[in-house]
Amino acid sequence: MQKTPARLHLHIENRRQSLWIYHITDELWAAAAMRHKKLAGRLDVTIGWDGDILDAALRTADCMIAPNPPLVWLPSDIALTNNSGAHGAKCEDYCAMAMLMLATRMPGMLASHRAARWEPLFTTPIAGKTALVIGFGDLGSAAGRAAKKLGLKVIAVTRSGKAGRPADAVYKVSRLESALPQADFVVVATPLTPQTRGLLNRDRLALLKPEAGLINVGRAAIVDHDALRDMLIAGRLSGAVLDVHAPEPLPAESPLWTTPNLVVTPHISCDDPRYIDILLDRWFANFARFAAGKPLLNQVDRKLGY
Amino acid sequence: MQKTPARLHLHIENRRQSLWIYHITDELWAAAAMRHKKLAGRLDVTIGWDGDILDAALRTADCMIAPNPPLVWLPSDIALTNNSGAHGAKCEDYCAMAMLMLATRMPGMLASHRAARWEPLFTTPIAGKTALVIGFGDLGSAAGRAAKKLGLKVIAVTRSGKAGRPADAVYKVSRLESALPQADFVVVATPLTPQTRGLLNRDRLALLKPEAGLINVGRAAIVDHDALRDMLIAGRLSGAVLDVHAPEPLPAESPLWTTPNLVVTPHISCDDPRYIDILLDRWFANFARFAAGKPLLNQVDRKLGY
Repeated sequence: MQKTPARLHLHIENRRQSLWIYHITDELWAAAAMRHKKLAGRLDVTIGWDGDILDAALRTADCMIAPNPPLVWLPSDIALTNNSGAHGAKCEDYCAMAMLMLATRMPGMLASHRAARWEPLFTTPIAGKTALVIGFGDLGSAAGRAAKKLGLKVIAVTRSGKAGRPADAVYKVSRLESALPQADFVVVATPLTPQTRGLLNRDRLALLKPEAGLINVGRAAIVDHDALRDMLIAGRLSGAVLDVHAPEPLPAESPLWTTPNLVVTPHISCDDPRYIDILLDRWFANFARFAAGKPLLNQVDRKLGY
Repeated sequence: MQKTPARLHLHIENRRQSLWIYHITDELWAAAAMRHKKLAGRLDVTIGWDGDILDAALRTADCMIAPNPPLVWLPSDIALTNNSGAHGAKCEDYCAMAMLMLATRMPGMLASHRAARWEPLFTTPIAGKTALVIGFGDLGSAAGRAAKKLGLKVIAVTRSGKAGRPADAVYKVSRLESALPQADFVVVATPLTPQTRGLLNRDRLALLKPEAGLINVGRAAIVDHDALRDMLIAGRLSGAVLDVHAPEPLPAESPLWTTPNLVVTPHISCDDPRYIDILLDRWFANFARFAAGKPLLNQVDRKLGY
């Protein structure tokens, strides 16, 4: 273990075009520094926007907080960590809500609402149904907790075929086809990697039960949203709730806005408005480990890409 | 205890204008009789519709299953029971969904959806907030269980000032004004009685937090829906979810359909499509108690009206 220098230069890089909740402003940094006084006292901090001071900062920076750092150019002796775990609580709420909305046939009743039509749809309680959660990291395990809380059986689908609590059963992604027909709800909660891109294609979506519901809180490119739209128009599935889209913002002319039995939300499923406070608290916790010579949490596996 | 006669005449009365899920058809009776063979063997059953055979049936009937029997003419030596408890599981799902939708600001985002506008709203997790549940019987305790499951604090408001689990605190209805300002969510789950009619009037609704949300699964006449509508139009409250209306079906010209931040559902919150199966199973359980000379469950207190 190397000895940590007494003072370090932290550079924080922001992108103006990203949403305000992701901006690490002077004010939010100052508040975090107050919460972590002793550690913050060892840091010289620069805050840049859209690369305005990036070249100069990188000449002296010992560490950096940045959105979407490109993995390809990052030297291999630089430790890279992510913010995994910051999204759990909100994601759990959103997935519970989306599963209950699908179980209650809310997408159909919202269409009746828009047309001022009284059209009751009666549904059985959700307990005892089955949730299939694709990806069981930060978001997926939150989806699993949501499902367990509602009395569902949870089947996880993971790369390794392993998953911790609260999964009742686990399938390797290579056996996805055997898992899909069992699902009353599918929650897509995996990161986008070359392996997950296009995972839920038209053929695999066709394996779902006629009354299954689909929720995507992962990334749009994992699911063939066009095939999903065709199924919903044909009256297949009980509905879908999509929080992630391509591109974002979803353009006003996207046919998804008017697809029947589809609820579109604007990528809000897993973000707390206190996101930066949480991120900086977690960064300080990792910095404390770094200063103590302990291994860092949330290290990114560059080969897997997350 | 009187001795029960060997054979009894059960008359079942239906109303055609009620929803199909409430109809006790020949088929549903036959299925229930199969599930409860021995007890059913003691019954001579007549099934009437809209009073077509009612007069003749009442001359010989020992017991009757009927929708909304008028309490005023019922002789006081007739035991009257209701179906309390049949609605719990669905009500729990609906209340959890409605609280999560309000916490996530779904009413606002659904309006954006209708207009094909990408307008993210970010909200903190629901855990730790407070649900105020007015009425803590079958529906209210289900709402309480939903709230506890989501990590909320539960305050019950009851006539007696007493409430069982899962209430964390209880207020007498006479102290409703002190309870209302504490609520992040209000769930109206009390029966309609002379005492609850108009309970949440304009003045009391004004005591709610600016960001509170309101859910009505009880009866429309308990809440001043016009005052609620005025508040929602003025941007007060985070939203409302109303499952009960006056009249029902809610007419197409009702302004509630187009009120901002309001979700209207067509009285589906607490009904399982297997409602009659559940009702008949519960009726047979009570009939078994009657046959054994035991006191009946779910006896209606005629003075309270429920």
